[in-house]
Amino acid sequence: MTKNLLTSLPDASAGEVVTSLVTREGMRIERIVSQGQGSPEGFWYDQAEHEFVLLLQGHAELEFEDGRTVTLRLGDWVEIEAHVRHRVRSTAPDEPTVWLVAFYG
Amino acid sequence: MTKNLLTSLPDASAGEVVTSLVTREGMRIERIVSQGQGSPEGFWYDQAEHEFVLLLQGHAELEFEDGRTVTLRLGDWVEIEAHVRHRVRSTAPDEPTVWLVAFYG
Repeated sequence: MTKNLLTSLPDASAGEVVTSLVTREGMRIERIVSQGQGSPEGFWYDQAEHEFVLLLQGHAELEFEDGRTVTLRLGDWVEIEAHVRHRVRSTAPDEPTVWLVAFYG
Repeated sequence: MTKNLLTSLPDASAGEVVTSLVTREGMRIERIVSQGQGSPEGFWYDQAEHEFVLLLQGHAELEFEDGRTVTLRLGDWVEIEAHVRHRVRSTAPDEPTVWLVAFYG
């Protein structure tokens, strides 16, 4: 019944790999493994739900439409409120980046 | 706006330290820092909400009323459904154990 988020990582070099951990009414938790991916130029996420993001391995940069950028490393977390437009500017090119994300609200 | 769950840890040697990260309707996320604590003998959590538990540092043992025990180390996670009775059997005595927990549903 226990599972591990950091061992036996899938190969994400060809594209992000999303694994659903928990799906409940109004709430889901996922692991995302990235390797070098970022959002397409000019693309913004505009989500109906709030998102909690915690970085578990690797590193990444988030960019917000208001101009803020946020670098995430091990243990860094941020909550992105619904409809706050954002994108993934970059993830580590040479190692897996592992995110825990929860969507709710 | 970014915060880190693993740096500047509070001293939990005298008691668990709970830090609320996100509180939303029907959903909350917390960091718990333990050091050597376990639930009192004979005590069982019996919660109205589901709980997602992810271990970020240290190690811990969970015990369930049906007799199962689960050892959690870095990256291990488990979902404990509402009203599944459980207790913390032990946490690492000599280093902080850091949990990310979410309650929902």
